[in-house]
Amino acid sequence: MQYQELFDYLGEVEKRLAGFLRASDVPKYFNPEDISESVFSYIGRPAKRLRPAVLLMASGALGGPQRERLSLPAAAGVELFHTWTLVHDDLIDHDTLRRGGPTVHEAVRGRARVREALPDHLAAEYGRNVAILTGDVQHGWSIASFADCGLQPEVNGALVLKLIKHLQSYVLDNLIFGEVLDVRYGMRKLAELPEVDEAKIVEMLWLKTGVLYEFAGMAGALLGKNTDDFEDDEVQAVTHFASKCGTAFQLQDDILGILGDEATLGKPVGSDIREGKKTVIVYETLRNGTEAQRKTVLSALGNRSATAQEVQVVKQLFYDLNGIRRTKELAGRYIEEAIPYLDLIPESPYKHKLLLWANYMLDRKF
Amino acid sequence: MQYQELFDYLGEVEKRLAGFLRASDVPKYFNPEDISESVFSYIGRPAKRLRPAVLLMASGALGGPQRERLSLPAAAGVELFHTWTLVHDDLIDHDTLRRGGPTVHEAVRGRARVREALPDHLAAEYGRNVAILTGDVQHGWSIASFADCGLQPEVNGALVLKLIKHLQSYVLDNLIFGEVLDVRYGMRKLAELPEVDEAKIVEMLWLKTGVLYEFAGMAGALLGKNTDDFEDDEVQAVTHFASKCGTAFQLQDDILGILGDEATLGKPVGSDIREGKKTVIVYETLRNGTEAQRKTVLSALGNRSATAQEVQVVKQLFYDLNGIRRTKELAGRYIEEAIPYLDLIPESPYKHKLLLWANYMLDRKF
Repeated sequence: MQYQELFDYLGEVEKRLAGFLRASDVPKYFNPEDISESVFSYIGRPAKRLRPAVLLMASGALGGPQRERLSLPAAAGVELFHTWTLVHDDLIDHDTLRRGGPTVHEAVRGRARVREALPDHLAAEYGRNVAILTGDVQHGWSIASFADCGLQPEVNGALVLKLIKHLQSYVLDNLIFGEVLDVRYGMRKLAELPEVDEAKIVEMLWLKTGVLYEFAGMAGALLGKNTDDFEDDEVQAVTHFASKCGTAFQLQDDILGILGDEATLGKPVGSDIREGKKTVIVYETLRNGTEAQRKTVLSALGNRSATAQEVQVVKQLFYDLNGIRRTKELAGRYIEEAIPYLDLIPESPYKHKLLLWANYMLDRKF
Repeated sequence: MQYQELFDYLGEVEKRLAGFLRASDVPKYFNPEDISESVFSYIGRPAKRLRPAVLLMASGALGGPQRERLSLPAAAGVELFHTWTLVHDDLIDHDTLRRGGPTVHEAVRGRARVREALPDHLAAEYGRNVAILTGDVQHGWSIASFADCGLQPEVNGALVLKLIKHLQSYVLDNLIFGEVLDVRYGMRKLAELPEVDEAKIVEMLWLKTGVLYEFAGMAGALLGKNTDDFEDDEVQAVTHFASKCGTAFQLQDDILGILGDEATLGKPVGSDIREGKKTVIVYETLRNGTEAQRKTVLSALGNRSATAQEVQVVKQLFYDLNGIRRTKELAGRYIEEAIPYLDLIPESPYKHKLLLWANYMLDRKF
């Protein structure tokens, strides 16, 4: 299978990340037990680790294997950064499952009810509070890992200080902007949001996902060249490539969220529909539907007690009314725009893997 | 008045901080409006800015005026760091007032109800969500400011990377530990907490307050000497001094929380009693009280509808049963332990201000 090389690399990255996190001197400060257990819960579950893999591939592509190895602490930093945003998002979205296990606020709530015999409402509040603080601790660990990267004698310290600043301002603030938009869209029915259109939804996808992939590509490229010149042509090429692939990845992920089974998703089939997730799929379907079809979709969307049959009907409308096809088309366009950027960097096994990743998003069977 | 020199310096620090924050290139990324307004709300209100002042005094004491000036971005970073922890703590503690204005979650809730005509429960949830994300954005801005400090050509970049790592692991994780302990103590009546004693309460004060003062002293000392040697004798002396003063400051603050008027506190008289804050004052009072007196105290403590008269009775018991005196005594002991560390660093106007600060905590009229 042509993608085996990519999958092998992702598996290797997962092992190396786990090794780095195990050896880190930061977890000794995690206290009390509810915090230390919670900090590790998402990280310990199987996941693709695509963001750190993109960072490492970019680093290897511009700097070779030695630079790729030196970038591992930064790759761990990106994964931890992604993790804390998941913990806070899951709390905000009232999600109960993540990667096949309970979300942080849910797990802590459950433990507090049993271990400490707290009444329901206190246990739930304690769970929410620990989730806020767990995300804060992971946020700190993420940045501490970047600092670890910059403290290696072979790495340009100014480059890492600039990366930390970029991550903690531009990247973080755009991610939060996306999350607030998501929260605001979620507070109202789609039909009540005249300002939402396809471009706005795609912008939100970029904010919520693209910007961190963009950062992973940029950070890897800079670390690969060990330069702090953000305007370097090769760095710019990898940055744009990763940014566009990141948005495509999220478009693809939205399709998977509708079509995947429970094992792939780590949460029940139909969750995205019952949570009322605002996607291009939904937007396009509503745009093309009759009044009756729109009503059918809107009655299941965001309705946590929608039946399996209602979910199935909506899924069928997502196909029939072009929602799925339009989303695939957009994802394809982003990948097609991304790939030519790789012409600007030299051939290497790492570049080959970046190309495989981009192509996999087009080829993947939904 | 002998403390005028200290007050003048604090006023000057407040202006310089405001200038730095105004000139920062980070706020351009704050979006949407609810985030950008919220990020600035606490920072814009009058406050003593003691943490950044300690950082700057420490820097000046070991490095003179030029090093002190170069440390300003780090001083802003410490203030922003303190700010994000306040935003998350206020949310967790259900506080409604901070520095004489509404807390972030309350302000956003109020605006959402009026501007967007949201129903109460949705407005409250939106307020909570924006408060989580506002703290996250401030956390990022804090670290970005430290990076700014390290990117100045005159500053040792490795030193700043080490400071960032220390802040994001040891300091942050101890702060969070303190907050979780506080939450856990708050979930139960004091009487149900056999494990709480004076030493535990003082430990929590150090975790919640002392550790960030310790960091401010340490960061200032390292930046003053422009060294990344955390074991340097003078650095260690200033670190210990600041750590002990920080705990004393919080003990003193707990007394002020009982005895201050609304203007000093920025919140209604009796708030600490109605919120059921677990302090040495409370612990000592309960320890020395008769069964009837304990009952009187426990019935007002954490009771949000306690009357002004009930609050007044509890205040009187705090005096009569030694709670206030014991707390003053402990604060005094910490200051007395702190001051000799300053013998280990050279005389200077900055050292003189550090001494004034420590002595002010002893002399201050409650």
